[in-house]
Amino acid sequence: MAKKIYKTSLALLTDFYELTMAQGYYFYQKNRFAIFEVFFRKNPFNGGFNIFAGLQTLVEIILDLRFKKDDIDYLSSLGVFKKEFLDYLKKFKFTGNIYSVEEGEVVFPKEPILRVEAPIIEAQILESIILNIINFQTLIATKTARIFEASRGRAILEFGLRRAQGIDGSISGARASFIGGAVATSNTLSGKIFNIPVKGTMAHSWVMSFRKEIEAFKKYAELYPNSTILLVDTYDTKKGIRNAIEIFKILRKKGIRNFGIRLDSGDLEYLSKETRRILDKEGFKEAKIVVSNELDEYIINQLIENNSPIDFFGVGTKLITGNPDASLSGVYKIVAKKEGKKITPVIKISDNPEKITLPGIKNTTRFFSEKGEMLFDVIHLESEKIKGYVFHPDFHYKIGKIKKSFKERKILNKIVENGRLIYEFPSLKEVRDKT
Amino acid sequence: MAKKIYKTSLALLTDFYELTMAQGYYFYQKNRFAIFEVFFRKNPFNGGFNIFAGLQTLVEIILDLRFKKDDIDYLSSLGVFKKEFLDYLKKFKFTGNIYSVEEGEVVFPKEPILRVEAPIIEAQILESIILNIINFQTLIATKTARIFEASRGRAILEFGLRRAQGIDGSISGARASFIGGAVATSNTLSGKIFNIPVKGTMAHSWVMSFRKEIEAFKKYAELYPNSTILLVDTYDTKKGIRNAIEIFKILRKKGIRNFGIRLDSGDLEYLSKETRRILDKEGFKEAKIVVSNELDEYIINQLIENNSPIDFFGVGTKLITGNPDASLSGVYKIVAKKEGKKITPVIKISDNPEKITLPGIKNTTRFFSEKGEMLFDVIHLESEKIKGYVFHPDFHYKIGKIKKSFKERKILNKIVENGRLIYEFPSLKEVRDKT
Repeated sequence: MAKKIYKTSLALLTDFYELTMAQGYYFYQKNRFAIFEVFFRKNPFNGGFNIFAGLQTLVEIILDLRFKKDDIDYLSSLGVFKKEFLDYLKKFKFTGNIYSVEEGEVVFPKEPILRVEAPIIEAQILESIILNIINFQTLIATKTARIFEASRGRAILEFGLRRAQGIDGSISGARASFIGGAVATSNTLSGKIFNIPVKGTMAHSWVMSFRKEIEAFKKYAELYPNSTILLVDTYDTKKGIRNAIEIFKILRKKGIRNFGIRLDSGDLEYLSKETRRILDKEGFKEAKIVVSNELDEYIINQLIENNSPIDFFGVGTKLITGNPDASLSGVYKIVAKKEGKKITPVIKISDNPEKITLPGIKNTTRFFSEKGEMLFDVIHLESEKIKGYVFHPDFHYKIGKIKKSFKERKILNKIVENGRLIYEFPSLKEVRDKT
Repeated sequence: MAKKIYKTSLALLTDFYELTMAQGYYFYQKNRFAIFEVFFRKNPFNGGFNIFAGLQTLVEIILDLRFKKDDIDYLSSLGVFKKEFLDYLKKFKFTGNIYSVEEGEVVFPKEPILRVEAPIIEAQILESIILNIINFQTLIATKTARIFEASRGRAILEFGLRRAQGIDGSISGARASFIGGAVATSNTLSGKIFNIPVKGTMAHSWVMSFRKEIEAFKKYAELYPNSTILLVDTYDTKKGIRNAIEIFKILRKKGIRNFGIRLDSGDLEYLSKETRRILDKEGFKEAKIVVSNELDEYIINQLIENNSPIDFFGVGTKLITGNPDASLSGVYKIVAKKEGKKITPVIKISDNPEKITLPGIKNTTRFFSEKGEMLFDVIHLESEKIKGYVFHPDFHYKIGKIKKSFKERKILNKIVENGRLIYEFPSLKEVRDKT
């Protein structure tokens, strides 16, 4: 997928210090293996969960990572890398193991969600790209899941391209939002690359390019009789609704019923109710109502609580940028080092207590009731057998007991072994259906 | 530049409705020309300005925009486009004019900052990509300028790759932050593509991969004697400073003085003062202090106000995502249509007053005092001659008088004429120096 998008090698998409450290490892710790884990320090949006996303994008990039001639030339031009190390980079190829949670899975703070076991040089060079992709796609999948939840199952359309943070913010943001629960995107390129349904209505410029609003509506309906969603707020919303109804009458005479109205400004609760009332009075119960205009989960929740008769929510800025958080707090920390067979757990201490790491190679076991309800997760050493009592990582007085009737599964699974993919990525639709 | 980065054609990086509208224009308004303008509705960050950025990225993409065979195949597969229109897209090439503000220029809300004059089909298809690139890069350049301002001219290092919104969020974000005033980036690929200086120190994992902190410091100094910035907070900051000083003693014996300490947690005011005190006491007045850890313009302002002796600020998350705003409010609105020689201004009316557009083809004239101080901007019809009294667009009682002694210049200039570049892009360094 990344191969289709990028011409440039992404090997240099790494913080410069990863490369200077890598050179250090090359000269001083060539045979050192390390185990790094990714975890989030907290949930975004003051929320209760994260929806993990970005794995396929990431793994494809990692397995394809090579330093090309112009990468090496550039590094060489900086005057800080020795020839011996640059020669090593020329042959660089990831040879380690990657364990990960599956995309679309719910994860919580402190849980290891991705683990890299590799020669420390390789593991270090990958840090920046791992965090970039997982932090962003998980942020957007999580935001979309929150929006979808607020909508009580109505359809969410991802409309964020024009406000996304750069080109890939829109492309992989649309991917993540589909995982998180959007039914479609406005981003045609994402539709093409990821096979996500694409949707759109019309802009004010369409209406303004004709002499009269009704003429603009009429022409649109002629061209797209099976998806005539008319934007009614270019000049006067109520008059726009009237004009739209004239068009719906024509369409219905032809036996077409797949039409609706889009509201993009004003008081959306009042206007959606008024639109519904007029549509129903005129006998257009089948007409759909689409709304947009700086929506987020809070506004949508309020609209739904107040019974606004809305069928589709077009959500742009706040979805595609994960506003107000803008980034996840995911970090990639060394948890153990390995020489020969000997594994030594390592810890980082900090004056900021939340920055102290949990040492050792870990996994998370998720417990379910007999009926299959998710109960709780337990973070533990990979080698540990979980039984008896468990406690909350922050609130130690909160204790759980593991009953024999519980079902369990570990959430970290091996995806890449010795640099080879051993996992079959589900389709994006399969991921989405699971979420 | 985009050619180097992207393999995929970016023609489909457009909201789907741009294409359905384009087909409509193709059939109903083939000879219609339109004039669209980009403007921002407000300044981000409750601030007083925007630093315009993204033009070169954008113009290179526009002039290179072609629908490739697989783009056409994809569109065809959707079943909504007619062969005639797809044949038109196969030959698509931008043939219009683009006027723009130069990168690095200060701009304000409501001012037209970019204008497209083209057949309406072409102008419409470009909407999404124009807004995506200009909104994002301007946001990040503006954020960086605010951070730079807060630092009172100290050095800002852009460290945001791991928290940027996707791959391009980091790549073009680093570009925009350099325009806004950063001296360097940690993003090696951005360094390579845009010729921005790259910088980095070390991560905690470097320190943790050795048995002892001092050993990690020593090896680093051996390898990078001329840029030994030691991260001292892996275990115990004060002990870390002592260890660093041991290394500096060794370096100084070799006549090297280019070293320093990086603080990445804790109370940065207290720790920077304490670090400075110890360094000075030990005679290392030349040692630099670099700080990082969730910095933004407010924290930096406070650190500087309180005389924290900091030389470099490493700024990541909040710079590269433009937090807390996450997106600019830039929009692209049709302001006039043209048939033959006849130009008709158009306006959009809205229940949200800030969404009402200013009709007609406009420019902004910037007035300066005799001494060259920037005084005020006047938005006006391109054809209008500005003299006498002018008033504030929101606060009409605020009135200015144009004196004969003022100097003036229009900020929108022609960049592309009939689809051909007629402007020479300055180097990024030239743009930055002007800002």
